[in-house]
Amino acid sequence: MTRHFEQELAGLKQKLLTMASLSASALTNGIRALVDRNDDLARKVIADDSIIDQLEVDVDEMAIALLALQGPLASDLRLVTIAMKISHDLERVGDEATTISRRVIELSQEPQLKSYVDIPRMANLALAMLNESLDAFINRGAAKARAVIPRDKEVDAINKQLHRELISFMIENPATITRALNLMVISKSIERIADHATNIAEEVVYLYEGRDIRHTGKSGGDPTIAAK
Amino acid sequence: MTRHFEQELAGLKQKLLTMASLSASALTNGIRALVDRNDDLARKVIADDSIIDQLEVDVDEMAIALLALQGPLASDLRLVTIAMKISHDLERVGDEATTISRRVIELSQEPQLKSYVDIPRMANLALAMLNESLDAFINRGAAKARAVIPRDKEVDAINKQLHRELISFMIENPATITRALNLMVISKSIERIADHATNIAEEVVYLYEGRDIRHTGKSGGDPTIAAK
Repeated sequence: MTRHFEQELAGLKQKLLTMASLSASALTNGIRALVDRNDDLARKVIADDSIIDQLEVDVDEMAIALLALQGPLASDLRLVTIAMKISHDLERVGDEATTISRRVIELSQEPQLKSYVDIPRMANLALAMLNESLDAFINRGAAKARAVIPRDKEVDAINKQLHRELISFMIENPATITRALNLMVISKSIERIADHATNIAEEVVYLYEGRDIRHTGKSGGDPTIAAK
Repeated sequence: MTRHFEQELAGLKQKLLTMASLSASALTNGIRALVDRNDDLARKVIADDSIIDQLEVDVDEMAIALLALQGPLASDLRLVTIAMKISHDLERVGDEATTISRRVIELSQEPQLKSYVDIPRMANLALAMLNESLDAFINRGAAKARAVIPRDKEVDAINKQLHRELISFMIENPATITRALNLMVISKSIERIADHATNIAEEVVYLYEGRDIRHTGKSGGDPTIAAK
């Protein structure tokens, strides 16, 4: 029975890694579509989101099946419920990549407003946070997970700065408003992806250290306050 | 043992109802603070969010304890895991109410941009969806939950229309830009609260009908496409 549990658990982890890889690719491709003004790539990200959605449903089914096995220890139960939470966060990452890709298609109908330096930088930070949180989950790395959490502030700060820059564009020239709004949405979506990576990291700390650190390190997601 | 499970389950449901009531109040008060330009009320919503956060942690603990009891049926396991998902959605509702309240405080530093009719209307729709989803969860009302889902489109449509109106303000008069952006964020937060109510309704349908209808009725949250 225990061995059966271990096998099923390995399958669940593998499924999560597949989800993580697909959602990271969705973000990478969404940003590449922005930089290259490549609508086909953006459309592919949107179309492929249903694969990530289906994986979330699969993870839930596998988790329920695991919970129904008799005899799992409390720590295993916790691991399974956290796998479900991580899968939900990854599904949301896919949704944000879809949002980004929709805005990319709108943006490509007008001339480029500015050079894209900060947005790919934010995306790379968010991707690294996502990869390291997942790695910490799989390899029981509570310390590694803990190290991810403060990096969210860096992404928040870039988002806030870009937001300010885009407002100044809008004020100077109202013809930039729709483009600036699309870029604000993209920037906010990346910031949310970093939030999901942070959620995952917090779950992993909880899982391996037994301490619930959600809602302790930040004051509700306001970058104005968090940056202080 | 079964009786013990039933008692614990009743406690879990009670905790969720408390969360639902507090998160609904947070939204109501955030919108009242907007309409009445009442910063003190907005600050109270922000301060009280930690109570909702703590309840989410409590629900998780109760759920893990329930899963550790020997012998729950598969349907009970599913109910417990869905209670955890609902609690997460409610916690996010509280976060959105906090976002709204922060923007209310910013808005009260400038003259009012427009009369607030559509925003309270959206909020009332979202609140009704939230109440009915929770009611469907507690009272096993799969049909009632199903009826909640299509109403999300109405909220999306108002959000989209308000968004267009605010863009026209911004184009006509750049002095309105920061206020229009704050109102866009508030409108989007309400739209997200309606999304959380929809998530809860979909979970309840899954729980009581055994069919997973997440990701089937909508195309990823884009109101442009969903409204067609």
